Amino acid sequence: MTIRAAVTHFEPTEAQIDAAQRRIAPYAIRTPILTSETLDRMVKGRVFLKPENLQRSGSFKLRGALNRALQLNEEQREGGIVAWSSGNHGLAISYVARKLGIKATVLMPQEAPKTKIDGVRKNGAAVRLYDKTKEVREEIGAQIAAATGATIVPPYDDPFVITGQATLGAEMAEQVRDMGQVLDAALFPCSGGGLVSGAACGLHTLMPQASVYSVEPLNFDGMAISLAAGQAMKASAQGTSICDALLVPAPGQLTLPICRAHLKEGLSVTDEEVKEAIRFAFQELKLVVEPGGATALAAVLAGKVDAAGKCLGVLISGGNVDPDKFAAFVNEQG
Amino acid sequence: MTIRAAVTHFEPTEAQIDAAQRRIAPYAIRTPILTSETLDRMVKGRVFLKPENLQRSGSFKLRGALNRALQLNEEQREGGIVAWSSGNHGLAISYVARKLGIKATVLMPQEAPKTKIDGVRKNGAAVRLYDKTKEVREEIGAQIAAATGATIVPPYDDPFVITGQATLGAEMAEQVRDMGQVLDAALFPCSGGGLVSGAACGLHTLMPQASVYSVEPLNFDGMAISLAAGQAMKASAQGTSICDALLVPAPGQLTLPICRAHLKEGLSVTDEEVKEAIRFAFQELKLVVEPGGATALAAVLAGKVDAAGKCLGVLISGGNVDPDKFAAFVNEQG
Repeated sequence: MTIRAAVTHFEPTEAQIDAAQRRIAPYAIRTPILTSETLDRMVKGRVFLKPENLQRSGSFKLRGALNRALQLNEEQREGGIVAWSSGNHGLAISYVARKLGIKATVLMPQEAPKTKIDGVRKNGAAVRLYDKTKEVREEIGAQIAAATGATIVPPYDDPFVITGQATLGAEMAEQVRDMGQVLDAALFPCSGGGLVSGAACGLHTLMPQASVYSVEPLNFDGMAISLAAGQAMKASAQGTSICDALLVPAPGQLTLPICRAHLKEGLSVTDEEVKEAIRFAFQELKLVVEPGGATALAAVLAGKVDAAGKCLGVLISGGNVDPDKFAAFVNEQG
Repeated sequence: MTIRAAVTHFEPTEAQIDAAQRRIAPYAIRTPILTSETLDRMVKGRVFLKPENLQRSGSFKLRGALNRALQLNEEQREGGIVAWSSGNHGLAISYVARKLGIKATVLMPQEAPKTKIDGVRKNGAAVRLYDKTKEVREEIGAQIAAATGATIVPPYDDPFVITGQATLGAEMAEQVRDMGQVLDAALFPCSGGGLVSGAACGLHTLMPQASVYSVEPLNFDGMAISLAAGQAMKASAQGTSICDALLVPAPGQLTLPICRAHLKEGLSVTDEEVKEAIRFAFQELKLVVEPGGATALAAVLAGKVDAAGKCLGVLISGGNVDPDKFAAFVNEQG
């Protein structure tokens, strides 16, 4: 019997990111870069927005899910996939599973947005709701995997998932370069850190000088405080946040070391700042953005990075939001 | 004194459309083509969506406004522009006027959406609200033009405006061709017909076999009934429609002959069908679409054209909608 040691350190290489780009290309959308003169005027710089809310499954999570699922051999495919997710990873996994003809089970917190739970079911995956206060999703996932032979696809702490998200940084850099510009900085929403760690590596292959920032909801900003402390820390997770997709209080074991090497700083934003960004995206960009997908834009609008005279990349990471919530956000006075 | 005869017949040539494309390129966005697997499954065909709600000023109207304004000589620029508009043409004109350093006055109906009136003002144009039931906008416009030396830029019945909108048909065809496909049909929202007449010409330069359809709100479907009758007709304009941008009851004098030559048929959609399309765009496309901008998508979703096994182009023409209205639309049960 072979026991494979768990991966404890990983950083995607340029070659791995290139391979992932080619691997996921038949299934993923190369989302465009959007610009807004209003935004540029407001921040006195140039902002290049990459709207991954337009991605299949409604978020960037498709990239990592695809890159992981496409590694499965025939036997593993037969066994199916099990994943846990506040929603977007589940939507991505269920979408990919349907595409590849693989069975999937997704563990979701009871309070996940209805549109996300419904979407996973519509994709044909089995949904197992759990009670965050009483159950540990990793344990349920491991039980299901053991019982069914399913492969666990974690939401962020996985080399192939991180490399999948890295394609976003590479793509953003390529697109901005093709527009004749170089990014001074780039901001990415952050929960466990799969997106920002991967994207930073992807971006740095082409634009090594760019300052990369994670942007988390206040009190759930484990990456920010870990980066500031120089070691893994857990955020207070006090109160709540409208960013249902970004409620992981601590960075991943794989993602934190990458972020320590590649990020300038971790930023955090309040719910009010996020709502302001959702309204801005509605009004000026004509985009539907979910709260967790709007944190990087929120940080720019709130002036948390110095944008004057600079070129900034901003990832809009998802758009899966319940209609009643979205209606309330855009209708509220800022 | 030279009296110039009013233009009574016009159809943009390929060369004129090419020239317009080059002329507006520095100012307009080449909006992407989006696809949705959900939509394709629903209609059993392939739909290529061109989201002009992502265009500067929030609608396709920028193209015609730009192409017209860029014709003005120094003296005309000094005199300024006057335009009438339910909103989107006004937003486009005021945007273009600001960009080119030209004064603009925009006549808007009192009941125009707040976001449109505010937007025109924010662009620095003077807004003159009028009472549709008591005043004739063309008359007020002519008075202002006579008093100030301003040039009138009509919303649709103008060769340069039509040619500007024609760039959309050409661009859609080019982009779909670059994706290795040929359109069997294309659908465009329609009010006075500037968009659909121009776009049909642009599309037919590259894909002459494509069937082109106008899509109007029911009871405001002057183009549809005129095409069916083979002569200019006025729709009943009974009741009202949520499509504030598409309330012109009769086609233009220039646009109808072009449409008679280039269109297969005129379609119409109900408010309920439009709301369904707005909700679909919110849920599946993550796009903010205004009612008038959603009619072509609504026609496809409502099965008003046979899409099975076909490639369809669908223009989403604008996204300027008041937050309270949008909130009500997406929150309503379909």
